[in-house]
Amino acid sequence: MAVCSAHTTTPLHSPCTTVSNTSFRQKQVIFFTSNRRSGRRHGGARTFQVSCSVDKPVVIGLAADSGCGKSTFMRRLTSVFGGTAEPPKGGNPDSNTLISDTTTVICLDDYHSLDRTGRKEKGVTALDPRANNFDLMYEQVKAIKEGQAIEKPIYNHVTGLLDPPETITPPKIFVIEGLHPMFDERVRDLLDFSIYLDISDEVKFAWKIQRDMAERGHSLESIKASIEARKPDFDAFIDPQKQYADAVIEVLPTQLIPDDNEGKVLRVKLIQKEGVKHFNPVYLFDEGSSISWVPCGRKLTCSYPGIKFAYGPDSYFGHEVSVLEMDGQFDRLDELIYVESHLSNLSAKFYGEVTQQMLKHSDFPGSNNGTGLFQTIVGLKIRDLYEQIIAERAGVPAETAKV
Amino acid sequence: MAVCSAHTTTPLHSPCTTVSNTSFRQKQVIFFTSNRRSGRRHGGARTFQVSCSVDKPVVIGLAADSGCGKSTFMRRLTSVFGGTAEPPKGGNPDSNTLISDTTTVICLDDYHSLDRTGRKEKGVTALDPRANNFDLMYEQVKAIKEGQAIEKPIYNHVTGLLDPPETITPPKIFVIEGLHPMFDERVRDLLDFSIYLDISDEVKFAWKIQRDMAERGHSLESIKASIEARKPDFDAFIDPQKQYADAVIEVLPTQLIPDDNEGKVLRVKLIQKEGVKHFNPVYLFDEGSSISWVPCGRKLTCSYPGIKFAYGPDSYFGHEVSVLEMDGQFDRLDELIYVESHLSNLSAKFYGEVTQQMLKHSDFPGSNNGTGLFQTIVGLKIRDLYEQIIAERAGVPAETAKV
Repeated sequence: MAVCSAHTTTPLHSPCTTVSNTSFRQKQVIFFTSNRRSGRRHGGARTFQVSCSVDKPVVIGLAADSGCGKSTFMRRLTSVFGGTAEPPKGGNPDSNTLISDTTTVICLDDYHSLDRTGRKEKGVTALDPRANNFDLMYEQVKAIKEGQAIEKPIYNHVTGLLDPPETITPPKIFVIEGLHPMFDERVRDLLDFSIYLDISDEVKFAWKIQRDMAERGHSLESIKASIEARKPDFDAFIDPQKQYADAVIEVLPTQLIPDDNEGKVLRVKLIQKEGVKHFNPVYLFDEGSSISWVPCGRKLTCSYPGIKFAYGPDSYFGHEVSVLEMDGQFDRLDELIYVESHLSNLSAKFYGEVTQQMLKHSDFPGSNNGTGLFQTIVGLKIRDLYEQIIAERAGVPAETAKV
Repeated sequence: MAVCSAHTTTPLHSPCTTVSNTSFRQKQVIFFTSNRRSGRRHGGARTFQVSCSVDKPVVIGLAADSGCGKSTFMRRLTSVFGGTAEPPKGGNPDSNTLISDTTTVICLDDYHSLDRTGRKEKGVTALDPRANNFDLMYEQVKAIKEGQAIEKPIYNHVTGLLDPPETITPPKIFVIEGLHPMFDERVRDLLDFSIYLDISDEVKFAWKIQRDMAERGHSLESIKASIEARKPDFDAFIDPQKQYADAVIEVLPTQLIPDDNEGKVLRVKLIQKEGVKHFNPVYLFDEGSSISWVPCGRKLTCSYPGIKFAYGPDSYFGHEVSVLEMDGQFDRLDELIYVESHLSNLSAKFYGEVTQQMLKHSDFPGSNNGTGLFQTIVGLKIRDLYEQIIAERAGVPAETAKV
């Protein structure tokens, strides 16, 4: 089994040194443990990891209640680094992994210990920790963080089965995206930065109706029932992770339109934890004070219902945080650049970079509202964090972000 | 009668050229018309004005429902110009006039056509236009504006009588302060800048109780009765003038303390008319947008109930205005300088000038809240306006304000 094949096929992504099989096996054999709880694993052969030396990855956790796959957030993040994220070349077409020049994003669904049938048999949802192998997740994230390649299982979202593993070599930035990146304390401790995407029930419901009723023909009752069924496990196992996040993007219904329940206009909060190393929160006008700002006025004319920003210090699960909030949506480029020009600590490389990124991906969902804006900003923040960590390791001061 | 005596006694204040009595009398005799409606004038001898040439005054109107005399606002204004305002030397000790190096402030009560007894006999209040001589007010303000000295009557607040007139020579800045500076259209048109001090009924009541009940031993009922008796004429003749003001300082109860009726903590608005020549409104953070700002936070710790600012475009009697609002009060110098550092277009000559002015007069009423702050700012604005007008007349561009 060619555990180091990735070195040859994707040399640019791999900082691993070649290790002789003998010494490697003596020192570092970490087995790909087939799951202890469920037997339903496909291609469950023993695989192992390789030892690496230089450029150990910066590890980012992104928790969100949604399918993993091609997440908009991850596409925005990889775009900040200049590349595009694509599935591993020549691998399983149903792989959930996305790889760009700098970044590898894996989906934590791949650590399901129970496949779809297994979950049905045991009567547990995918949200339930019992359907997930945290020991393996921990071992493999730790290995990657130490610069070692891994043989990561694949959960096939199409078939609901566990497919044979794929080789993941350590990238510059390793993102673990899914339901449980901050659930297990050991995994959590490996994260250099963590993000929680918190979609409020109202918005989740509005989005689900839009997608499942309008596009897939589901009934309103079945949508309600599926949300209700999911809720207890979500509240028990997913939601509590947000207390550990360094940044939370919270998506709420707008307050600009009275009694709005369409879920089209959004109020989005970027909750930024204070005191996180290498993370300098974005602020509006005056750092540490409380501000509300309606940019639409004499200089900028916005269409109904306009745009409203808020910024200020707050407390979040006992942590000191700075919260930036945007309610409403952009209609035009000048609104976006006007807003960008008034935000500070963006970690942009040049004036207008946020706007440029947003325009580049104007077809992505959320490009006209706070979800896209804050995802882009978090992307810049992660780039900045990465550069600071790398510079620190190299013993040189990181180039200060320009804007 | 030595109409030009002021030339000799206060040469620094007078830009008047000496005019021979003969030519003067032939060209410019404007008689001090004894009042047409009331005969009760003291020292009603015919006096006349002198013709002047250079440095015609900039004329400012300040409307307020209060005693004229030593108004705090006027003391702040004259202080901005570096001088102190004092009653005319050697004149009537009950003169209402204040003179500094640059500024002369007259009280429009001096144009009462009915003295206290006369008003009582006719059953009119001092607020009633019928108790005031607008023709004379117009003629004399016009004369001053044209650089001519005047013989202005004096209303004696102590005796309630009309005293013999005093000579007023044209200063650099001529301020008419009182109940009716913008009532008469002709007088209004002479004003280069106008200000209305708008004290809300709740605050007026709280202040009156403080002064008349606590200090003068009046009963609550008599205070209420006197306010009620005054209100119809106030609403009919004084209040409507605010629509003409270039700047309104509105004093309201705080919104920081629920159901506060003590009137100690104030919410003060500076309503600045847009499009006024030589007047560039102050703004907070972002000109033309809507902002609210609580400066108390991580960098600045304020004591209860804190400080809250608001800024934004609005409409005021059909005019486009920019409103700056401060609720709460300063406890310490660092709060004041922090706030000053975030205001723009202050027309200060140097960073910290507003704070310096406020500290210099920390014993003046309102020095810890928005009344003092906005009076000081309006003082800077008037200095800026004056300098721009003078520079324009001289055909040179005004030195731009530094801050």
